[in-house]
Amino acid sequence: MTDLNGLNANQLKELLDDLQQKYSTYQSQNLNLNMARGKPSPEQLDLSNKMFDILTSEDDLKAEDGTDIRNYGGLDGLPEAKQFFADILEVSPNEVLIGGNSSLNMMHDTVMRAMFHGVNAESEPWSKLPKVKFLCPSPGYDRHFSVCEVFNIEMIVVDMKNNGPDMDMVEKLVSEDESIKGIWCVPKYSNPDGITYSDEVVDRLAKMNTKADDFRIFWDDAYTVHHLTENPDVLKNIMVECKKAGNENRVYMFSSTSKITFAGSGIGVMATSENNLKHIKKLLSFQTIGPDKINQIRHLKFFKNHENLKKHMKKHADIIRPKFDLVLSKLDSELGSKNIAEWHNPNGGYFISLNTLDGCAKKVVTMAKEAGVTLTGAGATFPYGKDPRDRNIRIAPTFPSLSELEKAVDILCLCVQIASVEKLLEANTVEQ
Amino acid sequence: MTDLNGLNANQLKELLDDLQQKYSTYQSQNLNLNMARGKPSPEQLDLSNKMFDILTSEDDLKAEDGTDIRNYGGLDGLPEAKQFFADILEVSPNEVLIGGNSSLNMMHDTVMRAMFHGVNAESEPWSKLPKVKFLCPSPGYDRHFSVCEVFNIEMIVVDMKNNGPDMDMVEKLVSEDESIKGIWCVPKYSNPDGITYSDEVVDRLAKMNTKADDFRIFWDDAYTVHHLTENPDVLKNIMVECKKAGNENRVYMFSSTSKITFAGSGIGVMATSENNLKHIKKLLSFQTIGPDKINQIRHLKFFKNHENLKKHMKKHADIIRPKFDLVLSKLDSELGSKNIAEWHNPNGGYFISLNTLDGCAKKVVTMAKEAGVTLTGAGATFPYGKDPRDRNIRIAPTFPSLSELEKAVDILCLCVQIASVEKLLEANTVEQ
Repeated sequence: MTDLNGLNANQLKELLDDLQQKYSTYQSQNLNLNMARGKPSPEQLDLSNKMFDILTSEDDLKAEDGTDIRNYGGLDGLPEAKQFFADILEVSPNEVLIGGNSSLNMMHDTVMRAMFHGVNAESEPWSKLPKVKFLCPSPGYDRHFSVCEVFNIEMIVVDMKNNGPDMDMVEKLVSEDESIKGIWCVPKYSNPDGITYSDEVVDRLAKMNTKADDFRIFWDDAYTVHHLTENPDVLKNIMVECKKAGNENRVYMFSSTSKITFAGSGIGVMATSENNLKHIKKLLSFQTIGPDKINQIRHLKFFKNHENLKKHMKKHADIIRPKFDLVLSKLDSELGSKNIAEWHNPNGGYFISLNTLDGCAKKVVTMAKEAGVTLTGAGATFPYGKDPRDRNIRIAPTFPSLSELEKAVDILCLCVQIASVEKLLEANTVEQ
Repeated sequence: MTDLNGLNANQLKELLDDLQQKYSTYQSQNLNLNMARGKPSPEQLDLSNKMFDILTSEDDLKAEDGTDIRNYGGLDGLPEAKQFFADILEVSPNEVLIGGNSSLNMMHDTVMRAMFHGVNAESEPWSKLPKVKFLCPSPGYDRHFSVCEVFNIEMIVVDMKNNGPDMDMVEKLVSEDESIKGIWCVPKYSNPDGITYSDEVVDRLAKMNTKADDFRIFWDDAYTVHHLTENPDVLKNIMVECKKAGNENRVYMFSSTSKITFAGSGIGVMATSENNLKHIKKLLSFQTIGPDKINQIRHLKFFKNHENLKKHMKKHADIIRPKFDLVLSKLDSELGSKNIAEWHNPNGGYFISLNTLDGCAKKVVTMAKEAGVTLTGAGATFPYGKDPRDRNIRIAPTFPSLSELEKAVDILCLCVQIASVEKLLEANTVEQ
């Protein structure tokens, strides 16, 4: 294990030959491995299979308030479902809106409503403004950025630090530019870095002065109960802080059970001030009669209470922790102390974020693909798919089996080394 | 049974006294009856209760193509679900898009997409135009009109005739006014009239020249298999006719199983040309990963095939036909030949549409309410809630029990008579 930066041209060339030989061997194996998909494995989905048996035709098909769960109605969700998610998100049930199977859909529609109708009855629709901009802490979640793209919202990259977005930059930008209307945040076990925002970052987000009255934080708390370790990260409650700061309408929280029960048949949820919710529910009533109540009851009967949910998440962790451990230990043994890559050991979430030397990410992803390993496209973690330093690679370890993962990470590490050595050789040549 | 128009003032006054006495008796009973809600009764929902047992944790949880139905994916629905709905809607599976639990949501989002992005990649977003108008055959479905209101689309009332919308008017308007971008249609067992569009109307809609290139027919085939009689209405296939006429992109079809299985947990669906679908799916991919696949499989396992669906719908008809018969026979015995009201005997659908003398509907609905009978608000069946002749009342007979329904219709008929006699007395006074 040596710092590759210390090698001379000949040593680098020798190393490259060796690495390329190994790469050729993998190429000849016609592999088909995938570390691109942030989706639960079949074993994780099996954990919720009892949900298929939890409601039968023999059951009382009524909600607690007597609502027939089979019929129309319930625009914002059943009261017991709101209570359940309120407990998870640490908000009041009156601040909760239950959705369909997709929190992404709720985020999209929240932006859509702001574009067309404004964030409340008094404010101007964003689509009437000459320009709307969002801050995008990056690397971040590509589907957040896609929502901006589809509504023609200009994205401004803000650096992610090890405690959240660069708040000096955020505060400066929002205080100066009225066209900045929002910021995307994955505040806990962030996608892809696995970072949890510090208390200070949460406080500053809640308190900061924004030039735009209708500035909103899109707080995608997707991984709020998705811990990997016994000492999980703790995220400060931003709704509470916003209220304290007199900015109670500033936050839209989102979450879902997609990575808790069934990825395609979970429950999406959002939480925001009652004031915001009133506006949203009025507009929502033109869009739908209400979300699937049977699936709400199915979830509630399955979990019964918050304690069971926590136990259930431990079972998820037991399945995916070895996968994270494998990737992290491979990164450490293959790339550690070579001074060519950095990564963060997350305490939860779904991803490991690998930063290569500048200008190597695209090359690595292409090389890996050519050896049969699919990774998330380089650049996907940045707005417009453009990583300014071309160095970030998102690793999604949950879906493949351990043996697939082992081979895939070996290849990834090999590609990182090859690209790094080539880069160092180039620099070396330039110096000569 | 006499034509009330033939009575003189004294006879009318005498009759009014008698009717008002009956009305007082009902008022003193503190009734709480409801004929407003177009929703299935608990007995109808019971017909699908076996869906709760149809999938268990012991089942193979894969779709036909091997897709894990629990995980992410399937933006436009499972292939077998597309095939099932293609059979119902008489289109190709390639023309089908499976949604969540709400076809209203699909209609809303289709309008939303047209507003923001246009109906295809080339056409201009409607929101960029100074004015967008829709034709609204009326009486019609209030939630269609609400979608127009929420997107600030101007609604133009078109008369409903006994074979569909007034096509002379439709053809004239769409040929002259480029800002007319759409028309709302419930072509089979229309809401509320229960009318099915004639072949000629379908042909003319498919063939007509529209000034706007991006004109679209919103074809809400909500009641396509919801027959009440052994001789159901037959609706001509508008997709086929549009293709023949070279207007293959003209129609968006919508339907759902909300009034087939569970109203709140059914499957919404749309069908349109592959060209239109390509555009829609691209935009949809920014909004969601895909609809609930488990619920698709639940439906498919429950029905297995189209024949079983037909049998299932006969069971619905067996439950609701007596309710329609009761209402219709009451209307006949209480109002028939008095020349104060008109209605249509529908062969399917969910409603009976009652037209009173001009200027009486609001009064009738208010009076009925004061005697404990809730009806759909007068005017609700017209754009902006304004029935120009104030005469249309929508009766929804499916939800109440037969005994509730009997009393509710008695009261309704009484209120119609009182309002009519008062109206005739006014006219009588004016004449004197």
